[in-house]
Amino acid sequence: MKTIILCLTFLFSSLVFAQTHSEVAELLKNKGLQDLQAYELLKDLISSVGTRLSGSEGYEKAVQWGKKQLELAGADSVWLEPVMIPKWVRGPVEKAEACVSGKTVELTICALGGTIGTPKGGVTGLVIEVHNFDEVKALGEKAKGKIIFYNRPFDRTKVNTGEAYGGAVNQRANGAIEAAKVGAIGVLVRTMTNALDDEPHTGMMRYNDTIMKIPAAAVSTIDANALSAMIAQEKNVSVTIQLSAKTFPDVPSFTVIGQITGSEKPNEIILVGGHLDSWDKGTGAHDDGSGVVHSIEVIRLIKFLKLKPTRTIRAVLFANEENGSRGGRAYAAFAKNTGEKHLAAIESDAGGFLPRGFGVSTDSIRFDKIRSYSSLLEIVGTEKIKKGGGGEDIGYLESLGTVMIGLNPESQRYFDFHHSNHDTIDKVHPRELEFGAIAMSILSWVLSQDGI
Amino acid sequence: MKTIILCLTFLFSSLVFAQTHSEVAELLKNKGLQDLQAYELLKDLISSVGTRLSGSEGYEKAVQWGKKQLELAGADSVWLEPVMIPKWVRGPVEKAEACVSGKTVELTICALGGTIGTPKGGVTGLVIEVHNFDEVKALGEKAKGKIIFYNRPFDRTKVNTGEAYGGAVNQRANGAIEAAKVGAIGVLVRTMTNALDDEPHTGMMRYNDTIMKIPAAAVSTIDANALSAMIAQEKNVSVTIQLSAKTFPDVPSFTVIGQITGSEKPNEIILVGGHLDSWDKGTGAHDDGSGVVHSIEVIRLIKFLKLKPTRTIRAVLFANEENGSRGGRAYAAFAKNTGEKHLAAIESDAGGFLPRGFGVSTDSIRFDKIRSYSSLLEIVGTEKIKKGGGGEDIGYLESLGTVMIGLNPESQRYFDFHHSNHDTIDKVHPRELEFGAIAMSILSWVLSQDGI
Repeated sequence: MKTIILCLTFLFSSLVFAQTHSEVAELLKNKGLQDLQAYELLKDLISSVGTRLSGSEGYEKAVQWGKKQLELAGADSVWLEPVMIPKWVRGPVEKAEACVSGKTVELTICALGGTIGTPKGGVTGLVIEVHNFDEVKALGEKAKGKIIFYNRPFDRTKVNTGEAYGGAVNQRANGAIEAAKVGAIGVLVRTMTNALDDEPHTGMMRYNDTIMKIPAAAVSTIDANALSAMIAQEKNVSVTIQLSAKTFPDVPSFTVIGQITGSEKPNEIILVGGHLDSWDKGTGAHDDGSGVVHSIEVIRLIKFLKLKPTRTIRAVLFANEENGSRGGRAYAAFAKNTGEKHLAAIESDAGGFLPRGFGVSTDSIRFDKIRSYSSLLEIVGTEKIKKGGGGEDIGYLESLGTVMIGLNPESQRYFDFHHSNHDTIDKVHPRELEFGAIAMSILSWVLSQDGI
Repeated sequence: MKTIILCLTFLFSSLVFAQTHSEVAELLKNKGLQDLQAYELLKDLISSVGTRLSGSEGYEKAVQWGKKQLELAGADSVWLEPVMIPKWVRGPVEKAEACVSGKTVELTICALGGTIGTPKGGVTGLVIEVHNFDEVKALGEKAKGKIIFYNRPFDRTKVNTGEAYGGAVNQRANGAIEAAKVGAIGVLVRTMTNALDDEPHTGMMRYNDTIMKIPAAAVSTIDANALSAMIAQEKNVSVTIQLSAKTFPDVPSFTVIGQITGSEKPNEIILVGGHLDSWDKGTGAHDDGSGVVHSIEVIRLIKFLKLKPTRTIRAVLFANEENGSRGGRAYAAFAKNTGEKHLAAIESDAGGFLPRGFGVSTDSIRFDKIRSYSSLLEIVGTEKIKKGGGGEDIGYLESLGTVMIGLNPESQRYFDFHHSNHDTIDKVHPRELEFGAIAMSILSWVLSQDGI
């Protein structure tokens, strides 16, 4: 006990003298690691709210939760910024069967976000396996009435799994459009992951108003391999897809905002943020519960240490990143009209794993300035400052000249869980999560003091 | 399929031209990430062998397994190096109860490695909580007949959990000696972890031949907190500890060795290694199954790519790191007598998590040379070359002038599992594990070519 009292005494007494960036960084690190409050917040979000798809009751609960937590974290002001968000509902049915030589094999699938549903009995057609859009185009007439099965896997040799995702995700995003162009009636897409398991991952897909809308579902990697093997063995494999997904009219909702108002330059903003919505599978613990609690924890840590930022540090919990980016767009429109200057925005939307650095999109002068903080960030192993980065939500601030910064956590495990039932809190490590919040606190603090 | 054939063709054709270090590094990375064989090996070790405590049947199975796997990996020669190893057996009983105000509370404990057993009914005494050896010394006469409860937790503000372990582990290692010096009859030690759970972790403890041997056990962090709270509330808390542990005479066994013999300087050795033994709790998946499969995978990757190292690359699966280091000592004695020169030794004994770099113990000239490979190691994110490092097993080579190098993986999760039932294969990620093997392959390859 004596040791604890001594430690606390040292902590508080050092606040008086803590002036240099590295002293503040040390205090933020120690307080964060002692309390591990980001994890406590995440546990609370998951247990009291759960999934938070735009337009769902869960998302509305999350708005109230976010507001309350920003208040509890000590934000000087907290408000809700209105935004109309889409409402897509998966419904109870998502089922697929392959039929080969009279035998029926069930495939583990899930509806892709935004897909239309099928008629009650589903859509049935012979299935054609492809790996890219050139192969789809080359099918021409042969694709008519068929189900197109996109089966290009992640490139495992990519060190950063985000790059592997980037190299495969056009199948999910635009696969239905390209397949419909040649007359296909449905789409199955191999799940976007390096993992080999029976869990399909959802995620956004698009339609084009001038092209027929056809249903689209993700198939687990195990069943993608199984289907591919069936097709290799037998020419005529047919698939039936049944989906009950439906899109409803947009609904009104909110992005949640809380800030520590700058003591000298309140109209200059350093933004930290993540997105409050999640997919409807799993609980969005990593995506993007982590970004949400990172942002709230930045406010808590800075307030707890009684630090007074020169410029405003604002936490933004964006609405609807997953299927529409309405929160990001609306926030940028709001930012344009406030007369405030958004100097920099730091987004956390790549999971709650150990952060190794930040990706920065800006001119070379400002990039170099941010890179000069690398030695400061080294105390929490977050010193890799790379060119390029940001986030979907803050991306809409680009036209305002805002420096866009993305937190870069370790990527190896992220796509094992991403957009699936596996994205649950047991995959998040309390200390790894906290490091992200500490790194964002340090960077937002120095930017609030030095400007950029 | 066409893509795969093209890739393979490219892979093999490029072997002919792959001469530069960075070309070789790229090939090692791609092959490793495509196959993920380190994980397949680890799965096989865990399922076909399991735990491997020195002196157990499991360890003897592991010796045969290691020999076979090094042969399958393509080593030019494989042999067993004899060594006498200790045999300590936990036995079926490890139980503790606290008695407070007539009420009995069970504590979750496990015997520390090397402890003596207790008499059948256990040892019973009033318990005194301490946090360091100064407090023990200050007890003086008061300690007589008591149970000493060491309860200094990990320092959570340490970024590297290995440092937190280093700051707490003397309680486990020397706690029984210090407590016996003042007449205590038994020792309970708070589990060495940042995690708060009900899992006690074992690990080595020491006796001193001139001081009474008293029984020593680890208590889970949850029950350490509970016991501490009892003591704070009531002065007279007694504890009974029952252990059935026993030490038997040493038994003969082996360290397992396999190598790719150097084409030009076969007597100059670049060693890669881990330890083949594990504790008897969990399955030693991280500690040190990971180091074992890392080392075998180095051999496999280099042989698969048909690389011909100038100097010998030798994989050593050391016996008995956990409770005696006999393998490391015996290997150093062997190395002294062979007339070979051990230029460098790379040990992996800090888990199969994503590696961030290497710790190097050598003079500054050779340190700078190894640091110059940082840019090469960056392709797998293992570029942090730090001063200081090595490993328990290779440490005995120091007097031979060997450069000692330790693989440094992420440390956040390691002590959640370390030496406990939680160290199982589900905690190991196939890609994270493989990165360690690739990084060791790259470094051992360049050292085999350039010397040091």
